[in-house]
Amino acid sequence: MKLARNYIDGQWVTQSSQRLKVVDPGKDEIIGEVVLSSEEEVHHAVISAQSAFPSWRATPATERIQYLFKLKVLLDENIESLARTITIECGKTIAESKGELKRAIENVEVACGIPMMMQSEFSEDISSGIDEFMIRQPLGVAACITPFNFPGMIPFWFLPYAVACGNTYLVKPSEKVPFTMQKVFELIEEAGFPKGVLNLVNGGKESVDAILRHPQIKAISFVGSSDVAQYIYSESAKYGKRVQAQGGAKNPVIILPDADIDVTSKIISDSVYGCAGQRCLATSTVITVGESKAKMIDSLIDSASNKIVGYGLDENVEMGSLITEESKKRVYSLVDKSIAEGGKLVLDGRKLSGSILMSGYYMKPTIIADVNPDGEVFQTEIFGPVMGIISIETIEDAIKIVNSGRYGNAASIFTSSGSSARKFRYEANTGNVGINIGIAAPMAFFPFSGWRESFYGDLHGQGKHAVEFFTQTKVVIERWPKEWSRKF
Amino acid sequence: MKLARNYIDGQWVTQSSQRLKVVDPGKDEIIGEVVLSSEEEVHHAVISAQSAFPSWRATPATERIQYLFKLKVLLDENIESLARTITIECGKTIAESKGELKRAIENVEVACGIPMMMQSEFSEDISSGIDEFMIRQPLGVAACITPFNFPGMIPFWFLPYAVACGNTYLVKPSEKVPFTMQKVFELIEEAGFPKGVLNLVNGGKESVDAILRHPQIKAISFVGSSDVAQYIYSESAKYGKRVQAQGGAKNPVIILPDADIDVTSKIISDSVYGCAGQRCLATSTVITVGESKAKMIDSLIDSASNKIVGYGLDENVEMGSLITEESKKRVYSLVDKSIAEGGKLVLDGRKLSGSILMSGYYMKPTIIADVNPDGEVFQTEIFGPVMGIISIETIEDAIKIVNSGRYGNAASIFTSSGSSARKFRYEANTGNVGINIGIAAPMAFFPFSGWRESFYGDLHGQGKHAVEFFTQTKVVIERWPKEWSRKF
Amino acid sequence: MKLARNYIDGQWVTQSSQRLKVVDPGKDEIIGEVVLSSEEEVHHAVISAQSAFPSWRATPATERIQYLFKLKVLLDENIESLARTITIECGKTIAESKGELKRAIENVEVACGIPMMMQSEFSEDISSGIDEFMIRQPLGVAACITPFNFPGMIPFWFLPYAVACGNTYLVKPSEKVPFTMQKVFELIEEAGFPKGVLNLVNGGKESVDAILRHPQIKAISFVGSSDVAQYIYSESAKYGKRVQAQGGAKNPVIILPDADIDVTSKIISDSVYGCAGQRCLATSTVITVGESKAKMIDSLIDSASNKIVGYGLDENVEMGSLITEESKKRVYSLVDKSIAEGGKLVLDGRKLSGSILMSGYYMKPTIIADVNPDGEVFQTEIFGPVMGIISIETIEDAIKIVNSGRYGNAASIFTSSGSSARKFRYEANTGNVGINIGIAAPMAFFPFSGWRESFYGDLHGQGKHAVEFFTQTKVVIERWPKEWSRKF
Amino acid sequence: MKLARNYIDGQWVTQSSQRLKVVDPGKDEIIGEVVLSSEEEVHHAVISAQSAFPSWRATPATERIQYLFKLKVLLDENIESLARTITIECGKTIAESKGELKRAIENVEVACGIPMMMQSEFSEDISSGIDEFMIRQPLGVAACITPFNFPGMIPFWFLPYAVACGNTYLVKPSEKVPFTMQKVFELIEEAGFPKGVLNLVNGGKESVDAILRHPQIKAISFVGSSDVAQYIYSESAKYGKRVQAQGGAKNPVIILPDADIDVTSKIISDSVYGCAGQRCLATSTVITVGESKAKMIDSLIDSASNKIVGYGLDENVEMGSLITEESKKRVYSLVDKSIAEGGKLVLDGRKLSGSILMSGYYMKPTIIADVNPDGEVFQTEIFGPVMGIISIETIEDAIKIVNSGRYGNAASIFTSSGSSARKFRYEANTGNVGINIGIAAPMAFFPFSGWRESFYGDLHGQGKHAVEFFTQTKVVIERWPKEWSRKF
Repeated sequence: MKLARNYIDGQWVTQSSQRLKVVDPGKDEIIGEVVLSSEEEVHHAVISAQSAFPSWRATPATERIQYLFKLKVLLDENIESLARTITIECGKTIAESKGELKRAIENVEVACGIPMMMQSEFSEDISSGIDEFMIRQPLGVAACITPFNFPGMIPFWFLPYAVACGNTYLVKPSEKVPFTMQKVFELIEEAGFPKGVLNLVNGGKESVDAILRHPQIKAISFVGSSDVAQYIYSESAKYGKRVQAQGGAKNPVIILPDADIDVTSKIISDSVYGCAGQRCLATSTVITVGESKAKMIDSLIDSASNKIVGYGLDENVEMGSLITEESKKRVYSLVDKSIAEGGKLVLDGRKLSGSILMSGYYMKPTIIADVNPDGEVFQTEIFGPVMGIISIETIEDAIKIVNSGRYGNAASIFTSSGSSARKFRYEANTGNVGINIGIAAPMAFFPFSGWRESFYGDLHGQGKHAVEFFTQTKVVIERWPKEWSRKF
Repeated sequence: MKLARNYIDGQWVTQSSQRLKVVDPGKDEIIGEVVLSSEEEVHHAVISAQSAFPSWRATPATERIQYLFKLKVLLDENIESLARTITIECGKTIAESKGELKRAIENVEVACGIPMMMQSEFSEDISSGIDEFMIRQPLGVAACITPFNFPGMIPFWFLPYAVACGNTYLVKPSEKVPFTMQKVFELIEEAGFPKGVLNLVNGGKESVDAILRHPQIKAISFVGSSDVAQYIYSESAKYGKRVQAQGGAKNPVIILPDADIDVTSKIISDSVYGCAGQRCLATSTVITVGESKAKMIDSLIDSASNKIVGYGLDENVEMGSLITEESKKRVYSLVDKSIAEGGKLVLDGRKLSGSILMSGYYMKPTIIADVNPDGEVFQTEIFGPVMGIISIETIEDAIKIVNSGRYGNAASIFTSSGSSARKFRYEANTGNVGINIGIAAPMAFFPFSGWRESFYGDLHGQGKHAVEFFTQTKVVIERWPKEWSRKF
Repeated sequence: MKLARNYIDGQWVTQSSQRLKVVDPGKDEIIGEVVLSSEEEVHHAVISAQSAFPSWRATPATERIQYLFKLKVLLDENIESLARTITIECGKTIAESKGELKRAIENVEVACGIPMMMQSEFSEDISSGIDEFMIRQPLGVAACITPFNFPGMIPFWFLPYAVACGNTYLVKPSEKVPFTMQKVFELIEEAGFPKGVLNLVNGGKESVDAILRHPQIKAISFVGSSDVAQYIYSESAKYGKRVQAQGGAKNPVIILPDADIDVTSKIISDSVYGCAGQRCLATSTVITVGESKAKMIDSLIDSASNKIVGYGLDENVEMGSLITEESKKRVYSLVDKSIAEGGKLVLDGRKLSGSILMSGYYMKPTIIADVNPDGEVFQTEIFGPVMGIISIETIEDAIKIVNSGRYGNAASIFTSSGSSARKFRYEANTGNVGINIGIAAPMAFFPFSGWRESFYGDLHGQGKHAVEFFTQTKVVIERWPKEWSRKF
Repeated sequence: MKLARNYIDGQWVTQSSQRLKVVDPGKDEIIGEVVLSSEEEVHHAVISAQSAFPSWRATPATERIQYLFKLKVLLDENIESLARTITIECGKTIAESKGELKRAIENVEVACGIPMMMQSEFSEDISSGIDEFMIRQPLGVAACITPFNFPGMIPFWFLPYAVACGNTYLVKPSEKVPFTMQKVFELIEEAGFPKGVLNLVNGGKESVDAILRHPQIKAISFVGSSDVAQYIYSESAKYGKRVQAQGGAKNPVIILPDADIDVTSKIISDSVYGCAGQRCLATSTVITVGESKAKMIDSLIDSASNKIVGYGLDENVEMGSLITEESKKRVYSLVDKSIAEGGKLVLDGRKLSGSILMSGYYMKPTIIADVNPDGEVFQTEIFGPVMGIISIETIEDAIKIVNSGRYGNAASIFTSSGSSARKFRYEANTGNVGINIGIAAPMAFFPFSGWRESFYGDLHGQGKHAVEFFTQTKVVIERWPKEWSRKF
């Protein structure tokens, strides 16, 4: 049976006795095992990273990026097989898997620009004969703890920048989907990174706590639910670390009457049902404004009910499975709860048929209209293929609803009006904003900007924020008196 | 009797019943009282700031900075009287008081550039027909909690940037030195800031905790001791806030044999004894390398023993008093402890005479040679006019000592060699580095970059870091399909 | 009689024998004289600037900006009297005069941020042990040659940046409007700039040529007509100088049927008739698209014919005079020519009455509909209060017209559609673009971005471009071998 | 016989009847022919580039850089064969050829970061409800005209940035060394750039003039001698183009007595004799300060006379040939002239023996001591393996000599003193400064910063300057009135 191992100090290691089964959620089949690292094994990885740090830091940035240039080529070349791995362990469609890998590669590309991104400022003559300048230096060892839903992408919001900046690094992927990083680390090995620079540690809660508490780890990046994000944030702070912790979301989209109905409903469907809704940027609540309500709901039902649901490796499948049986049960029951709170079930995706859908953790697209904005489900991150619809009369009220929740990850508006779009982006309290865009996922050269309970910290993943996060500033003030210049 | 009041919502308010005496440490005389704000009063200030936020945020940055331009002029014009206030409540010399005010004003000047500093990035065509851009928006209400040693400067590492970026703000100064901010807020009032934009809250621990826990305060800036900094950091994180917390220091300076002895000893004396050593950038440990030891120690004794100690308002005084009687006792006893650990007292500043020195909390310059690097005092932040000297043989060992402590605020080297200077700044584990400079205080357009236990967080005070800290990034992705452009 | 003198080396000097009369165009009255500097006098000013350069360059940027902070206060305080001077010598309304002064002050404000804007990049370890960094250093002596239409603003696109960056400077204003800079230089004197840092040279073509050819002048900024701009550009290049030369314009605006008619016609009127059309950002051609034509033209006539034309100092006057009698004649005859080419005169501003309008160089708002796009006038910069209207059917054709001219200064669109606005800004070949904005004048923190024959060079006035233009980059590569660090 | 053809519109074309022989200067053997393009052929290439422009500009930057990522891999893979080509047609050693290719590749790497480098600024609420932002858009067609001495590197100071920014491009290499770009364009073809995006035009003066005058070419980059650079600068300006023209150099190096003699003389030898001195960054004049004179000259003679001179493809050869017989004659005669002016020939490299040295255009390392600083040769760019030495007494006088010439390309100092280094970089009037570095060639992420007659223009090649040069700024001001947001 396939085993997801740790990669420490340039070696694939397997000493851990603890193991967990890994399941293909689209088939409910065991596909392998993953080691669950103990505190000692995490420590082993940290020691490796710590030992590799001094010489990696002293390797010029222009040389460090050569490994990233190689990694980009390798990721490009292996995108098909990586995508298959993601689909098998994560349940999403093959197109979605490739999509997330492209965003991963984009981050590697941006990190190739580190020689320029790490530059900082020089000021001549802050006072007569005195200069001041700043240097960005790496922190030492850093680590990320990443979730199941984008096994191929999320580590890349951090990893390329961390090592490009001269840090050494630990990746702790979700124990539900360990095989994607196994393959990625094979490519990392092939790219020739010096041993200890990049380390892979598999595991669960014990590994996480070991990482949070290890005194040699200077910075933590996390993506997961808001409750865990807040735990990670305060726990890391307790140990004096830098930390950026991205939490959950409940992303609303507003549809104004002047939006193009067909285009809009197609895009929103993709946004709600992509990755079976298990996405921190998935649209969750659709707010129709004014007269468009009836037509828009019809169009959304039409668009949703046409989605082909099935096993992700099937090329024609448009939506895959949920991640676990528990997850499926939870989402199914949230639908009941929403109805109990007054919602109207206009498309029920829980009635399944066919051997494939019966074997994995599937749910078909579901739509609940007239969601109760005072209900509990309205505030709950469902993380499944469920669209809730609220219909109201004014853009002002719609924006109020957008700003009423606890999360602030993303929000979108569909309109043809420049003024409505501007009003929305000015007033929406979310860090990622889409105008006629379903999933406002920032490119790698922008920060992934969650707000409120969707993010704890101040510097986000990707781009310049990542460089700021993975470096510490050293300010130097130099006085070289002219009179010390030797006269001969 | 003079009373330091709160300034809330554009009003000077005094309802608090709790009061604390404020003392002139240079004379041991009570000079007034300060209110100690309760949780309710803090809440009152937060409400004021929260109410002022929407319209302040909607005021264009080019208009917001007009108040800062005015404030700069007012601070320039009132520098004499502000300096007197600092000296009276804080004990430092009048020249030192003016010096810190100049750094305060410099931060106001830099914050006047906020229209450019707040700009963020626009990318056309991230995909065909889709643009992406980022906006920096203010957070809401933010607050700083500042220490006694620079009552006129430290709030300005944060305040000008916070309000320039569109936040509304609370300042909680040290209850030992409340009158400087009283005067500053009178100028703020005169500058005409809209009510509620800037609020002053006096108090002690109760006020601090109320600030840390208030859900409407989004960001905390703190400067104080490392233990409290770590408390502030983890407590703020627990409440989900952004936080930057600057702690203590124990700053070493290395003197190489090729340094100019006279210039060096003069500069180091100023660095050790400035503000009576109560400075997070004060030099605390002097490391002489190699042959220069004897001559350098003689020169340092000479330079130190010539310092005129006395009441700060006296123009010819070069060093003032400590902040409290307790502080004085603590520093005196640390000298004994250091001797007990093996140090050699070569200049004892505890023998005082004259009516002035006997009336306030004074100590004259003190030098302990052969400080024991394994002793406890070597690691302790003394915060008094005590220079410890360690003498060793190589620059490598000197750098090891620099990097051995828990703090990482500042370190300096004195040398005429470009290579020694470069080696030092490359290897020293501190965020502020001086080359032939006694106090490496970054200009306002650089971050004040503590490292290790001298700083908790990732973004520092001053300059671009302050702007990043006081804004949240909103990333907007816009799709405007060409086909929606009306054909007529 | 008032005499506009030169200000050289901190002295007001008058030795030139050549003089020219200065006229109030709103009254056709002589208001004074201006000296016309000879090549020798220009040389005298350059020598002054050259002598002042070394110590000005060696003055830290943080000190240089203190003069600019003072100048901002002085300009704020004297805005009324400066505005009167502009109005009297230039003919525009007092509100317009104040408006241009506000933009001038804004540039002073931005230049106050020079310590941060002049910073450049530092890279540690470009190769092991080698660092590289860049310093922005001033060029030496630079000069601007500015036009009559914004006597108070245009020199400030350059001057504050030039001196903030450490250059010394010459201003050569238009000989038609020399008194504004007289007053400005009185304030410059009051602000206390060291002598020779800022010099004022009055004159005509002889002075211009002396400036272009002087070997000690390193950089030329020019604003005027395109033909002269091209002359300045190639002549300066012949003498090896840096040069930025801003030329003429013929700015179109597109009105889509979904634009708000009343708001739009009001804004466009202001844009066409502001400063009597003597503005390089004035709208000149209005392109109505589709059905809106008739209503829009009615509304434009309405709006234009309501403008109160008269002497600029009258508070209720909305449009002032043209600059000279020749200018007036030229504009009057261009109206005839446009009619001859097929245009339809729907509002004729040439019929004047009343003693004021008969005494100065006035013309009332004029509108020509159905302008012939193949005619000569369509391509001609009129520089008078004449609106040409072209009516067509599609946005595509409208953009073609926008892109057909030789100029590329500015273009605007009025629409409520986000898609039409995006299409327009993507496709319009002009450097300044307005969306529902009549005059797209960039703020001081953006470059004033003319394209095509509206600009010759690569770096524009204002903001970061100005800093890049007024500094030269010095790249330093430093190697400090560790082994040269002395062991002792 | 091998023919160097044009590559236009994705095709290798050969219609030109004009041909020129290409010679291996290390053997004086004809190795092929190159076409000399007529004005018509240049026009053909421009048309191709112009046609390719709209769709290349509309290709997102993230896609455009994929071709550059491919090109980097291809250049890495083909570095050996490219280096051989350079050596054969240019005469330098194989190690030097590889060295220049590495700098070429570095520029491709930096240009891969264009999505971030092209970003520009967004400002929300410059006035209430109005936003302003800037877009960098490509210019259209641009071209470079490059010299013989770095056939593989210099085009890459421009080309990668030009196309990454969305321009289409023409390369006109020196007709003496056309085969390197032949091979590079084969790789460009293999990388799959769309046809017309990159075009190769071979030729001499006729081609150059056709490029300068073509109205569709918007920007010219040139590297060559100062006289031609000035011609290119003023001629391009006459045609209204942007232009950056890099000229000649005469780079001095100062040796202070505290420099390490052995290390210094080795580095300086490499700098003087690398590429047989045919380098715009070659050291040409050595200035010894004070007592070190005698020892330093001995060490330099030693180091120079040990250089192995021979055919570049020989692995152990350390210096190759000059480019032409004429060039050799000119350099030989400049040696005589310098002696006639008072110089003392201490190493004469004109006495050659052996079949190889007799067959090509060789000269061995030559040293002239006591060069007359008032002589003509002192000011002349020799462009051959000749070191001139001047010996003086103070650093002040040495810097005066550095600043006395007409050029300002580069200057270096060798010292162990931080103060002397700082004094030098503060006062030296050159754009590239080396501290203990022989050839201060800026990395690709810094501008190649010539000053004075070594450069005409304001924006240099490489890095951010290249991006600024190859884009034009479009400033957009957007007003979207809230009241236009539809209420429903």
